[in-house]
Amino acid sequence: MALTKQVLVLVGGVGGAKLALGLARQLPPEQLTILVNTGDDFWHYGLRICPDVDTLLYTLSGRVDPVNGWGLAGDSTIMLEALREYGEDTWFRLGDQDLATHVLRTHLLREGHTLTQVIGRLAGAMGVRPAVLPMSDAPVATMVDTLEAGELDFQTYFVRHRWQPTVRGIRYAGAAAATLPAAVAAAIDRAELILIAPSNPWLSIAPILAVPGLRAALLGRAVPRVAITPIVQGRAIKGPAAKMMQELGYSVTPATVAGYYGDVINGFVSDVQDAACRLQGLRTIAFDTIMKTDMDKMRLAQQVLDWIEGWA
Amino acid sequence: MALTKQVLVLVGGVGGAKLALGLARQLPPEQLTILVNTGDDFWHYGLRICPDVDTLLYTLSGRVDPVNGWGLAGDSTIMLEALREYGEDTWFRLGDQDLATHVLRTHLLREGHTLTQVIGRLAGAMGVRPAVLPMSDAPVATMVDTLEAGELDFQTYFVRHRWQPTVRGIRYAGAAAATLPAAVAAAIDRAELILIAPSNPWLSIAPILAVPGLRAALLGRAVPRVAITPIVQGRAIKGPAAKMMQELGYSVTPATVAGYYGDVINGFVSDVQDAACRLQGLRTIAFDTIMKTDMDKMRLAQQVLDWIEGWA
Repeated sequence: MALTKQVLVLVGGVGGAKLALGLARQLPPEQLTILVNTGDDFWHYGLRICPDVDTLLYTLSGRVDPVNGWGLAGDSTIMLEALREYGEDTWFRLGDQDLATHVLRTHLLREGHTLTQVIGRLAGAMGVRPAVLPMSDAPVATMVDTLEAGELDFQTYFVRHRWQPTVRGIRYAGAAAATLPAAVAAAIDRAELILIAPSNPWLSIAPILAVPGLRAALLGRAVPRVAITPIVQGRAIKGPAAKMMQELGYSVTPATVAGYYGDVINGFVSDVQDAACRLQGLRTIAFDTIMKTDMDKMRLAQQVLDWIEGWA
Repeated sequence: MALTKQVLVLVGGVGGAKLALGLARQLPPEQLTILVNTGDDFWHYGLRICPDVDTLLYTLSGRVDPVNGWGLAGDSTIMLEALREYGEDTWFRLGDQDLATHVLRTHLLREGHTLTQVIGRLAGAMGVRPAVLPMSDAPVATMVDTLEAGELDFQTYFVRHRWQPTVRGIRYAGAAAATLPAAVAAAIDRAELILIAPSNPWLSIAPILAVPGLRAALLGRAVPRVAITPIVQGRAIKGPAAKMMQELGYSVTPATVAGYYGDVINGFVSDVQDAACRLQGLRTIAFDTIMKTDMDKMRLAQQVLDWIEGWA
């Protein structure tokens, strides 16, 4: 295949990182740009933590914990245990090697570098070659309104409460004040193919789309814009997507996801396990979207690229 | 012995912590206050590091590395190695357990707690019962002017350059703007016995004395004020004191140290290995001041306390 297109993929955490790895193995690095959700970012013990960015960088550098899909393989938690011995509540896992990422990032941010610059430097230090861009340099915080505990910041909902509270609503605090980073605007402008990874639409992709100007910039590109379903057989591959969709009153189907993206996409990939998905105004196809092995990730990435190549 | 006096001891790093440990083993905690140099404190990778305070707390909590005299026994450097793999210059050792101290301190300081409050909380978390007070809540930075490399901040001189550059002068940046913390003023007011540990006079004790009002407060106490020599047989027990004294044009003797403290002290303890030290206007005595074992520390502390008790 002689694909020479510029590919932009929007990703959240574990599921997004898997597709990004598949793409990174199939495309020359200069043809791939990965736009990452930073709505999960938060301050913890004075450290700026970017869970989705780290999951992506650890995955692309081959160092991710293969069991969890996040964090570093074989990492220890000596610092965290020491913090616990000081009487601190250590609900968020900070691995010792992982800490180097947080310490360096926080240091560079406090020195005045933008998050885009910092992520570029971390990616370089980890040998990650495709461009990795945060959706925003300004903080945007995904806030989850819950029945049992009121509004929670994302990590408190997701990690501390293990996504058990009932979701009533979601907002992206700070989004209105955020601006589209120049690097993101440029990446969208040159994109000849835009993918949305099988990440949680509300928690991982919507924060990206909430950055002012970003949705319009995507719509302005008359190119294939294709989402891959994170819902298979009425369940999420990982995480709270299905539970949350029910709580928000949606039917837990690929069609709901496609409908949620609306005119942002013009193509949609569902899973072969589901009934064929015919959607008004969308090109659709079904592949095996479950990515367990690296081979699965490469295969799905290639199938999606090949399918879209055939559109022309 | 029925000593019921309130004891205040001024300390720097390793040597000071040794005497403080001896005193802590001989006195009820409510009778001992330890006033610590913070002129060595610095920011490193966004973390606020207080080397002398940590050496003291680790020593008093029985966790100090017995070989180095600083850092934690058996600590690992997994985070530091990971930082080095990111291409960073890791000249300052940050242990993984040690990091918990820096992370918690930095977090609390950034939340708006004073250094006095933060050290109180860390001391409590480590089970250290005597009061441990920083000389100042405001930053005071010991700056070392060197022949070969110009002015260096303390850690750069001490750790990065392994105190090899020739010292031409020392200043305590920020001292003029610092104020005496209320807790320090109160501790001096109630002190019935004031000790200066065998720490480096220029690098460890002078920064404390440079805090506005502190020297005058000490002079205002008509009580025994006794320094213990850090110089034995023309050499420093540890660190650059002797080398620095030569470079600054002083003779490397206990008398130089006593003279440097001037009217801040009215008593002086030299080492038995040196010729008897008779000094104008000072009560003097010689003990074995070398503290290798915990027994040595307890013995020296008790000898000094007993000797001063005999003054009355």
